[in-house]
Formats: sequence, structure tokens, C-alpha cells
Amino acid sequence: MTAAKGRFITLEGGEGAGKTTQIRRLTERLRARGLPVVTTREPGGSQGAEEIRALLVSGDPGRWGAVTEALLHTAARRDHLERTVWPALEAGQWVLCDRFFDSTMAYQGYGLGLGRERIAALQALALDGFRPDLTLILDLDVRSGLRRAAARAGGEDRYERMDIGFHERLRDGFRDIAAREPERCAVIDADADADTVQARVWDAVATRLPVPTGTAAP
Amino acid sequence: MTAAKGRFITLEGGEGAGKTTQIRRLTERLRARGLPVVTTREPGGSQGAEEIRALLVSGDPGRWGAVTEALLHTAARRDHLERTVWPALEAGQWVLCDRFFDSTMAYQGYGLGLGRERIAALQALALDGFRPDLTLILDLDVRSGLRRAAARAGGEDRYERMDIGFHERLRDGFRDIAAREPERCAVIDADADADTVQARVWDAVATRLPVPTGTAAP
Repeated sequence: MTAAKGRFITLEGGEGAGKTTQIRRLTERLRARGLPVVTTREPGGSQGAEEIRALLVSGDPGRWGAVTEALLHTAARRDHLERTVWPALEAGQWVLCDRFFDSTMAYQGYGLGLGRERIAALQALALDGFRPDLTLILDLDVRSGLRRAAARAGGEDRYERMDIGFHERLRDGFRDIAAREPERCAVIDADADADTVQARVWDAVATRLPVPTGTAAP
Repeated sequence: MTAAKGRFITLEGGEGAGKTTQIRRLTERLRARGLPVVTTREPGGSQGAEEIRALLVSGDPGRWGAVTEALLHTAARRDHLERTVWPALEAGQWVLCDRFFDSTMAYQGYGLGLGRERIAALQALALDGFRPDLTLILDLDVRSGLRRAAARAGGEDRYERMDIGFHERLRDGFRDIAAREPERCAVIDADADADTVQARVWDAVATRLPVPTGTAAP
């Protein structure tokens, strides 16, 4: 008996795009089909990566330079893959991840200006060429996203304090990533209520990945 | 008035090679010539890099995979350069550093098997091509070095517990690095008493860098 191969789906987007809600709903929907689902997040998702996350999200916004920040995110990512994601995929699970390497590309590459080439080369070196099976980019007008993000409690996100130009570069960056890799990335219009966005997410998943439909084995 | 440009000298070598002692002695000798000297170390040497160091040196020897470890060392190095080394060089100081990127090459590249190309590419991406003016590689028989390392108190070095084959790869790695970059690297025979090694270190520094001799301006 060979184990079914798992799938790796990442959700990306700027502040307030609704990733957390949509991951929860997609998890429920996949589980209702009988699929084993693991949800995780970056930076973090393994013991070591969570310790690196603590360095990234605490302290002054300017405590790390952009290059150091990209390296720390990438170190956390490698640990997360080795300890959490790759073992789950080997065991046949579907792994849904809140942010992945496209966030490093968007935030440090486009937003903070390190550039596409440098971030792409770093990811290729660090991750042995590993890529998601599908990336859902939740796309939303920057001001709407920031309003949503401001309305939720206890955010630890340092980027919410950046200027509007930074967030515009971020959004443009995510759209550019999707345009360059249309087979991997689906842009989801997130300017709607959660039910509508959920339907759009499900449509993208069912169209692009062979999701078992109907009654599934338990 | 333009400030004199500083110099960046790194000391490398396996366990027990005597780097700490030789850095202290070289510092004294350069200061006696009236040169402003800063001593520092890796991993560490800046507030952020010391926090990353704490992640690297604590916990089980196997807590980080080799790639993650190389990324963490490189993140710490970038922070150390931005916060400590580059400002000191700009201010005209001589910076003596206990370990630098050759240690990542030797330990993760040769010792743990990640390979030359991957480590070299990572350093080039992360450090904007920055290199030491001079690297002194203290070379010592592996068993002698491990005996010296075991004799000193309170070492936090996880690598001392690795097998002898690892330490042989490390020594061969440092010698190979020196053979590939003879203009930057000097191999110092460290199998002698501290005074003799100090004389060899000084000879290498005075031969390769224009050290002001005689009476210097205060």
C-alpha cells in the first residue's frame, strides 16, 4: 500500500485580506470530503521557526535590516518545511499554510526593495526548489485591507504601521508574482463578504487540484 | 579631513586552535602601534546577532538542520556587519573578528556536507560581496585541538561532540579555502606555544597589510 501524496496550498495577501478566515473555511470544506488537513503558518509552524518568529515580531520595527529579515524568514521556513510540512506531505496530508515564500518576495523583495532576483535566488538555495502545489492570493484594495486589519484586536504585525506606498508595492508585488506563475497562483478577489470569497477560493481549488468529490473514504 | 579606512581581519580555525588568545595578543600589538582596534566575534557581535547566537548554541545538537543553521549564521552575520563591523570600518578602526564566513563554509559546507557552491552563493547574496582584508587560519592537528578544547572550562560549543571525521573535514575545509584564496588567507601553523604562534600571526599581518610601524600618531 502506498500512501496518497499530500498537497501543499499556501494563502497569501496583504494586511486584512482575510487569510485566517479563509484557511479555516477551506479546512472545514476539505475535511468534509474526508481529506486529512493540517493548517500551519509562517513565520512559525515548528518549534524552532516559532522561536525565530519571536525575534521577527518583537521589538522596534527597525530592529532588523531588510536582508537580515529575509534571511531570518528563510531560516524559519526551512525549519518549518523539515519539521512540519514535508513530514505531513509524506504522510499524505493536505497542508494549508498562512503565508509562504511569496510573502518574503512581496514584503522584502517588492515592499522593502531588495528586488525579485535576490529573493528568488535565496529561496532556491534554501528550499531545494520546493514549491507549493497551489497558491491563493487574496487580493484587496489597500485601504480596505488596512481598515479591516485595524479593526481586529491584538495584531502583532509591524507592517501595519508602514506607509500606504509600502502596502501598494506589496499588493502590486503579489499580483506580479501571480502574473509570472499563473499555473501555480490564483488571484482571488477578496473584496466581498466571507461567504462569497469562500466560494471563489473553493472554485480555484476544485478547478486546479484534483479534489475528491462526492463520498470519500473516512 | 578624511578618516583613515579601517581594516577587517578575521581569525578562523577548528576547536582549540587558539583564536581567542591570538586575537587578544594581536589587539595589544596593533594598539601599541597607535591603531584603533575593535574586537568582535561570530556568531554574535551585535545585539540582534547575539540573540540569534542564543538560538544556535542552546538546545540539542540536532535541533537545527544544516541548511537552517547556515541561514541563521548568515542572518546573524548580516546584522553584525550592519550594526558593528561596517560602522567601525567607516570610522577608520581595525576590526578583529573571531570567526566569519569561512566558518560557515568549513562547518556547514565541508563538515556537514552542504557543499562549497551553496554556501558561497548564500554568502554572496547576503553580504553584498563584502570580504575580509585578511583571514588568518590557525591550523592544528585535530586531536591536539580537541584536547586543548576539552581542557578549557565551560565551552558552549556543540561541535566538540562531533566525531573525529567531522573535525578532519573541517580542517581540510579551512586549508582548501586558503588554497583557493591565497591573497586573502594566511595559514598559520598553530602547533606551538602562544608566543611562537603570536610571532607567526604578526609576521603574516605585517607582510600582508600596510601596518604603520615605528611611532604612530596617538
